[in-house]
Amino acid sequence: MTDSQPTADQPTVLPPGEAVLIPTGAAGVVLASAPFEAVVALLRRGITALAAEEDFPRLAIPPVVPRSLVERAGYVKAFPQLLGTVHSFAGSPADWKPLSAHAVEGGGWHSEQRLSDLVLLPAACYPVYAGLAGRELTDPVRFTVEGQCFRQEATSETGRLRSFRMVELVTAGTEEHCLRWRGRWLERVTGWLAEMSLKVEVEVADDPFFGPSRRLFQAAQRVQELKFEMKVPVADGLVQAIASANVHKDHFGEVFGFTSGGAVGHTACTAFGVERIVLALVQAHGPCPSAWPESVVTAITEPS
Amino acid sequence: MTDSQPTADQPTVLPPGEAVLIPTGAAGVVLASAPFEAVVALLRRGITALAAEEDFPRLAIPPVVPRSLVERAGYVKAFPQLLGTVHSFAGSPADWKPLSAHAVEGGGWHSEQRLSDLVLLPAACYPVYAGLAGRELTDPVRFTVEGQCFRQEATSETGRLRSFRMVELVTAGTEEHCLRWRGRWLERVTGWLAEMSLKVEVEVADDPFFGPSRRLFQAAQRVQELKFEMKVPVADGLVQAIASANVHKDHFGEVFGFTSGGAVGHTACTAFGVERIVLALVQAHGPCPSAWPESVVTAITEPS
Repeated sequence: MTDSQPTADQPTVLPPGEAVLIPTGAAGVVLASAPFEAVVALLRRGITALAAEEDFPRLAIPPVVPRSLVERAGYVKAFPQLLGTVHSFAGSPADWKPLSAHAVEGGGWHSEQRLSDLVLLPAACYPVYAGLAGRELTDPVRFTVEGQCFRQEATSETGRLRSFRMVELVTAGTEEHCLRWRGRWLERVTGWLAEMSLKVEVEVADDPFFGPSRRLFQAAQRVQELKFEMKVPVADGLVQAIASANVHKDHFGEVFGFTSGGAVGHTACTAFGVERIVLALVQAHGPCPSAWPESVVTAITEPS
Repeated sequence: MTDSQPTADQPTVLPPGEAVLIPTGAAGVVLASAPFEAVVALLRRGITALAAEEDFPRLAIPPVVPRSLVERAGYVKAFPQLLGTVHSFAGSPADWKPLSAHAVEGGGWHSEQRLSDLVLLPAACYPVYAGLAGRELTDPVRFTVEGQCFRQEATSETGRLRSFRMVELVTAGTEEHCLRWRGRWLERVTGWLAEMSLKVEVEVADDPFFGPSRRLFQAAQRVQELKFEMKVPVADGLVQAIASANVHKDHFGEVFGFTSGGAVGHTACTAFGVERIVLALVQAHGPCPSAWPESVVTAITEPS
């Protein structure tokens, strides 16, 4: 760190104070302190360094996306209980007049809110797959994406946020490419987290599928080894997935209509749960990043 | 730029290619290209340099906030047509079963979505004022905030995004402090934008108030000079506010209950419309940031 210049996003000296998430009054929705943000900036720098060998053009993803995108991606069918839809008042000033008096704390002003064309972003990679529609990928494509995701979680233990940041490395191409890529990245990210002195357990995972065929679906997911989670303690006695390495087989190639090597395109991604990685680092090294050993900061920003 | 290290957020060499916003299919909701993001990083660095004289602790603001916060702040009453509310499915798996078949593109799966406790963030500074509740501010407080804001805009000309990033410098204290602070920052930001060779016009503004007393309210706003906008061309023949310097008198002190100097606290803020500033720079200097004159990059990152 000693040879770099201070910048808005990457201070040379980590600011004093604690890397904390500050409650807003709503469960799982938090502000982040300056020292917390300084660690987020270190993580971004580390992920960029990790990804430097491959060419991953960066795309910034907004926190809202078209409703049709998540419908088409199959997210509504799989996770209806987690999706947030965006609603608005679409009437005229005259229509608003009787509601206006109720526009106070706890008031009933929202009775005429109507579904819009947008939903909250459930995972940062979806817009990338949609952008490949109609293409034949002669070479694998790669992207780095970052977005503020939303999931309407039912609980709010440490690390279970409803609004959180996700960085993803994404690729699309042939089945063989995606499987090999996922294997390499699972190993690479596990190694990176271990270098930060985090205790990582890798686990085949299933998603919290909501439908009546839940158990069957989850068992099928595990057998297919679609999702590997990297799990780390984020609080005393609480282990959570802070990163994952996934293949989606030809699901997105099928629904968004892209091909590779003449067959339906496959996709894979490595996802980093930004806030959870910071919480894991705080759990391992203490609340004040400016007091962490230099070796930890180096491990974050300069992966071997 | 030549003496700094490349980082995730602040590349030494601006990446080749165009700083563009990529459509998602939904009006006013866009992805941003890597060169666009590189300019965003330069702007963050410049704003941090601008703010270096004062101590502005940084807070990251999530894109969703408690509904009660915007109700209390008066946003619902003033801008009901712009607010996005977050809704979700709160039923059981059994309740979902009949809807599941409609969870396809354009399907009616959303008939049971219910209002949640969250809304989309309309302006990045609101959570700061809420955090001052109950305090007597013996000295002025200051914060830098950044958040992804949402406004359900009716049109989508260049720069009129529904989802956009806002950086704000915020202060709270006495009336005298806030007026002097706003005056100084209006001058400082206008000067910064002019150094980037942007053609800035400063205008007393009113907000697009929606209620039946619209004209009266807007006239009162103009007379009080609450809001000064810095307006710059963002496309041929299209001038937009890319930054503003505002006082809110004792509005937030009143509704959130904080005081300064024994009176109800006043607040002021300077807001930067991140995407619009990039669009204005593209309009002035061309689509490829890597081809901009070195003097422009220096003006952004090293305000005089």
